[in-house]
Amino acid sequence: MDLTDKLLAAKKAKGFSFGQLGELLGYDEVWVAALFYRQASASVEEVGKLADALDLPAAALEKLTESSLKGLGPVVPTDPLVYRFYEIMQVYGMPLKAVIHEKFGDGIMSAIDFTMSVEKEENPNGDRVNILMSGKFLPYKKW
Amino acid sequence: MDLTDKLLAAKKAKGFSFGQLGELLGYDEVWVAALFYRQASASVEEVGKLADALDLPAAALEKLTESSLKGLGPVVPTDPLVYRFYEIMQVYGMPLKAVIHEKFGDGIMSAIDFTMSVEKEENPNGDRVNILMSGKFLPYKKW
Amino acid sequence: MDLTDKLLAAKKAKGFSFGQLGELLGYDEVWVAALFYRQASASVEEVGKLADALDLPAAALEKLTESSLKGLGPVVPTDPLVYRFYEIMQVYGMPLKAVIHEKFGDGIMSAIDFTMSVEKEENPNGDRVNILMSGKFLPYKKW
Amino acid sequence: MDLTDKLLAAKKAKGFSFGQLGELLGYDEVWVAALFYRQASASVEEVGKLADALDLPAAALEKLTESSLKGLGPVVPTDPLVYRFYEIMQVYGMPLKAVIHEKFGDGIMSAIDFTMSVEKEENPNGDRVNILMSGKFLPYKKW
Amino acid sequence: MDLTDKLLAAKKAKGFSFGQLGELLGYDEVWVAALFYRQASASVEEVGKLADALDLPAAALEKLTESSLKGLGPVVPTDPLVYRFYEIMQVYGMPLKAVIHEKFGDGIMSAIDFTMSVEKEENPNGDRVNILMSGKFLPYKKW
Amino acid sequence: MDLTDKLLAAKKAKGFSFGQLGELLGYDEVWVAALFYRQASASVEEVGKLADALDLPAAALEKLTESSLKGLGPVVPTDPLVYRFYEIMQVYGMPLKAVIHEKFGDGIMSAIDFTMSVEKEENPNGDRVNILMSGKFLPYKKW
Amino acid sequence: MDLTDKLLAAKKAKGFSFGQLGELLGYDEVWVAALFYRQASASVEEVGKLADALDLPAAALEKLTESSLKGLGPVVPTDPLVYRFYEIMQVYGMPLKAVIHEKFGDGIMSAIDFTMSVEKEENPNGDRVNILMSGKFLPYKKW
Amino acid sequence: MDLTDKLLAAKKAKGFSFGQLGELLGYDEVWVAALFYRQASASVEEVGKLADALDLPAAALEKLTESSLKGLGPVVPTDPLVYRFYEIMQVYGMPLKAVIHEKFGDGIMSAIDFTMSVEKEENPNGDRVNILMSGKFLPYKKW
Amino acid sequence: MDLTDKLLAAKKAKGFSFGQLGELLGYDEVWVAALFYRQASASVEEVGKLADALDLPAAALEKLTESSLKGLGPVVPTDPLVYRFYEIMQVYGMPLKAVIHEKFGDGIMSAIDFTMSVEKEENPNGDRVNILMSGKFLPYKKW
Amino acid sequence: MDLTDKLLAAKKAKGFSFGQLGELLGYDEVWVAALFYRQASASVEEVGKLADALDLPAAALEKLTESSLKGLGPVVPTDPLVYRFYEIMQVYGMPLKAVIHEKFGDGIMSAIDFTMSVEKEENPNGDRVNILMSGKFLPYKKW
Repeated sequence: MDLTDKLLAAKKAKGFSFGQLGELLGYDEVWVAALFYRQASASVEEVGKLADALDLPAAALEKLTESSLKGLGPVVPTDPLVYRFYEIMQVYGMPLKAVIHEKFGDGIMSAIDFTMSVEKEENPNGDRVNILMSGKFLPYKKW
Repeated sequence: MDLTDKLLAAKKAKGFSFGQLGELLGYDEVWVAALFYRQASASVEEVGKLADALDLPAAALEKLTESSLKGLGPVVPTDPLVYRFYEIMQVYGMPLKAVIHEKFGDGIMSAIDFTMSVEKEENPNGDRVNILMSGKFLPYKKW
Repeated sequence: MDLTDKLLAAKKAKGFSFGQLGELLGYDEVWVAALFYRQASASVEEVGKLADALDLPAAALEKLTESSLKGLGPVVPTDPLVYRFYEIMQVYGMPLKAVIHEKFGDGIMSAIDFTMSVEKEENPNGDRVNILMSGKFLPYKKW
Repeated sequence: MDLTDKLLAAKKAKGFSFGQLGELLGYDEVWVAALFYRQASASVEEVGKLADALDLPAAALEKLTESSLKGLGPVVPTDPLVYRFYEIMQVYGMPLKAVIHEKFGDGIMSAIDFTMSVEKEENPNGDRVNILMSGKFLPYKKW
Repeated sequence: MDLTDKLLAAKKAKGFSFGQLGELLGYDEVWVAALFYRQASASVEEVGKLADALDLPAAALEKLTESSLKGLGPVVPTDPLVYRFYEIMQVYGMPLKAVIHEKFGDGIMSAIDFTMSVEKEENPNGDRVNILMSGKFLPYKKW
Repeated sequence: MDLTDKLLAAKKAKGFSFGQLGELLGYDEVWVAALFYRQASASVEEVGKLADALDLPAAALEKLTESSLKGLGPVVPTDPLVYRFYEIMQVYGMPLKAVIHEKFGDGIMSAIDFTMSVEKEENPNGDRVNILMSGKFLPYKKW
Repeated sequence: MDLTDKLLAAKKAKGFSFGQLGELLGYDEVWVAALFYRQASASVEEVGKLADALDLPAAALEKLTESSLKGLGPVVPTDPLVYRFYEIMQVYGMPLKAVIHEKFGDGIMSAIDFTMSVEKEENPNGDRVNILMSGKFLPYKKW
Repeated sequence: MDLTDKLLAAKKAKGFSFGQLGELLGYDEVWVAALFYRQASASVEEVGKLADALDLPAAALEKLTESSLKGLGPVVPTDPLVYRFYEIMQVYGMPLKAVIHEKFGDGIMSAIDFTMSVEKEENPNGDRVNILMSGKFLPYKKW
Repeated sequence: MDLTDKLLAAKKAKGFSFGQLGELLGYDEVWVAALFYRQASASVEEVGKLADALDLPAAALEKLTESSLKGLGPVVPTDPLVYRFYEIMQVYGMPLKAVIHEKFGDGIMSAIDFTMSVEKEENPNGDRVNILMSGKFLPYKKW
Repeated sequence: MDLTDKLLAAKKAKGFSFGQLGELLGYDEVWVAALFYRQASASVEEVGKLADALDLPAAALEKLTESSLKGLGPVVPTDPLVYRFYEIMQVYGMPLKAVIHEKFGDGIMSAIDFTMSVEKEENPNGDRVNILMSGKFLPYKKW
């Protein structure tokens, strides 16, 4: 049973949502989920708080303080939910590039100095998933 | 010179931003950029308005009323701006799946009943690119 | 022995067909098979009924209530039965796109709000496999 | 301008739907679309009828009597409409295999002795795309 | 030790050739080898005979009655013997297509209603491997 | 118009089958088709005979005397007829390896000192495509 | 003749080195080469200076003010000089990650706020290529 | 627990940095990290020193004296830190090739007779990662 | 511990070089290394001699008499030593083809009726690795 | 007509072999072929001599003085002659690595400080292609 499975099982047993763990740690629920999947790392104190909340020995979570190898998937994801983000990149990647360059100049949106949140918008025609990404604009340096 | 290049050249010659064309057509600038890159299609009337604005013969833009083959790129994008969206999918795809399933149940965020906008947030530490995606939640049907 | 193998073994031991399990759960046999292969998820009650029918402890089947990572195969399937569906996509994908766009406009057939069934048609020249897919049409939103 | 584009342009100019051309030739609209995309071949007489209907010289359509190299796309399609068929294969391929084997024994559904049609089902919750595939079951020969 | 290895070890221990097992089961040696590699499936009676011959408990061979996931290799095989068949497809695939279409019309050679045998032809300039493939011609259905 | 297309067009105009050209040149029809697709090379005399038969200037066919880059296709072929040969390699490659090793020892069937022919076997249950491959067995040299 | 070839030809005709052009523009020679290969973009004034130096009409170089699609190569480069950088990433990527994390914490070296220069170090045992890369450290933001 | 994990755990337990181990062994910290990841090999004496420092039995580290299979990753790395080196190769590979050829002639920078170090440059606008690579220039031999 | 590792460990423990084992068996050291990596197979007698030399039970080495699945690596090797052979094929493959065709006609160099040896040439400017490959020329058969 | 084709045509028209051109230039025939395929570069004088020999204007061959992008093929070559070199790398790459490491220590055979020649060995059992590769051994530097 790998660390992610152990964390997910403990979260389920304790009945926590990612949102509740996020409040407890002072971070967004998406970041907490990223920590569970080893895509983010936390300080020793934060890991201690998480261990307490989940009733797991802190030592078992120690790896969460390290930067593990990031990136979770096959080259093209097969899971339909994850694939839709690949599709958005395939279909809207160039239009986004054009609009960002028009508004900011030559550069990129950072995926490191970056935050992301998920909101549920209730809607009579079907609820909507609203995702807000915010990344620092990094202009290309000329040298 | 393909249709996308022709549109971009005319837009440049006329000095329009995507945002100005968006106001003219009544759509978001990202959608207009998607139309330029043949990732969206428009009605005959909309294409007519665009042709007028860009001083191009409507016939030259007729292909924009059709649904062309979507998807713009190599399997893994090499352009750094576009790649960052691939990276977000690789790194945060599973955490997003976990949070969306927790909030909505088993299903996906639609990439079809979907909108996206780009805001420039001025910030003394470096401006930020804020992207808001909104897609209808589609629950898996059991049958 | 993974969960899919355990389910298949229990089904064999009990002598159930997917169709009989489908009647028991109130769903189509294809959906039941998708549940066995972790491509669909079920409610706690449904998993309970299935556990009873297969004489397995409900706890062992608890994972079936979760949305696991979907998608089963190599990029291009090698199994001849599965490959034929890949071939249908390769050969008839563009013609289908053309016909669907002509009948519905720009959009897609949902693979989420989607059902599928398999009928055996007896035929003196060789029985036929009839597959009926039904997916909600999702028109591209303009925004 | 390749042959497919020429056929599509003539069809548009004449205002035919695939369905109308299908009635004219005595075939389903999907098969006609497959012929346009060079995924099916027709007899000299059928090509003659099509040339008449589209007001094109029969000689220009002569290639339609030959079996060209089939298969239209990239290994994993990027177009969202076409991709959904890839996704159905990825997600439901193994469940389909299990159900078909249970009902028919070891073998496959032919993609050659095969027909497919598309129906539009009007529905207050959103129209549905219904696809009926029918392929001869081919049992594995033992030898 | 997987089932294929177990079968091969028992065959070696008993000193059988595939040809001898083929006579025993009433099938060609290639088919027997395909059964060993889980690329073919057999009836309960046939598996019983094989179990007797190899002195293995029938229960251990029960999986041979099922249609397992077929296809054995990497996308491009690296084994030189297997690769040569890939090379034949790469080099002679189109010429074969041209000759088969000329002789039979538009369609394919079935790989399901299919038999194959291997003969050793003694030859002073070096023995020859003769392979006879026989597959039903399947004409493309028009619909 | 590349050389292969030119050859195929001349063959069609003259009404030759590959078999008739084969008789004329003293080779099998499959080899002639391989020559058309630039997968085999011929002597100056043979090319002269072919040019005469097809009423083409010998100079136009001069390239046929050279060994061009062989191999015609994508890594995994999408054409259904060609794919079936890929499938045979995927499904029966290892069983063939096992049988050939048992009969000949460690080595391969040459794809260079190799011949192949296609026979049409008329059959009330559907004609059969019979393919005979004959390649020299090359034992691995120990050194 | 594409823009890169045109620039390289003019540079050769004028006898400039990248270093001389760099001095002229006030940038490093590597950045100038990146501009030639459309991997960097310049201001209108800079492009004007370059056009003067190369005796090319400024209009012909206008594209250099735009951010074109970056990334030059096949997935794995085949050119030996370029490949060595791929090899360095393959062989030393994880050790670099370990050292950078140890020195800086969880984050990355930016490839956008980034400079690179090439020095020739004369050496009796063979000259050495010294490459200095300098990228801003971007710590992962927690949110 | 593989050898790399064992080494990393011992290093952590002992509180060593790569730099400290480097001083102890007389090598750069990057080389030590490469040794940990099995991308470099050491002499028996060096391994002995390392074993002493880490309080591990020398026998457990004996594999470090051998040249294991080098190369750590997927074809395109997904980890953002490692990916940036891939991006540098994609974006700046050709410009580097142009500059190196201009300065040195036709040849490459060796990745074998090669050293690399990482410096932390403190900077009020954000610390910088400085990487110095030094590889022997290898001119193409003419023969 | 797989068979290759077991053989390498015994060889190390006994202090043999591949050359010494080659003398013992009467074969070249490269062939012996190929046997260790399961890329060649040996007779029962040869395996017996090897078992004696390495002090291993003959039964443990019995698999060496069989032709295992050959080919050791990823599609593009990442190990620098192995990669250089890939590079030689990429860079010099076509020139070799041109020279071999000029000297021998249309055909190939066999990789089966093939030997290879490695010589160390001492050289004051750096020792050289000399590799001699010798393969039978196989002319393409016309049929 | 690209430069390689132009060179090959002129060589054919003049009736030169690569060996004769090699004598003329003072290089091996394989190197001359590499020059033809743009995998090597030559000095202005050498290009002048070649232009004279082939009766081509020196200006047309000027590109031969530049280091073009090297590497000629698809990732896995399909041409049988070229593929055999890929196969040798796949099958014998690891054994070669083991033997070279045993004889030279950790390092590689250079593919840059490298020569290669092809000899025809007449042999009653079939002529043999003898290839001699000689590359400088490059030991891994420790730093």
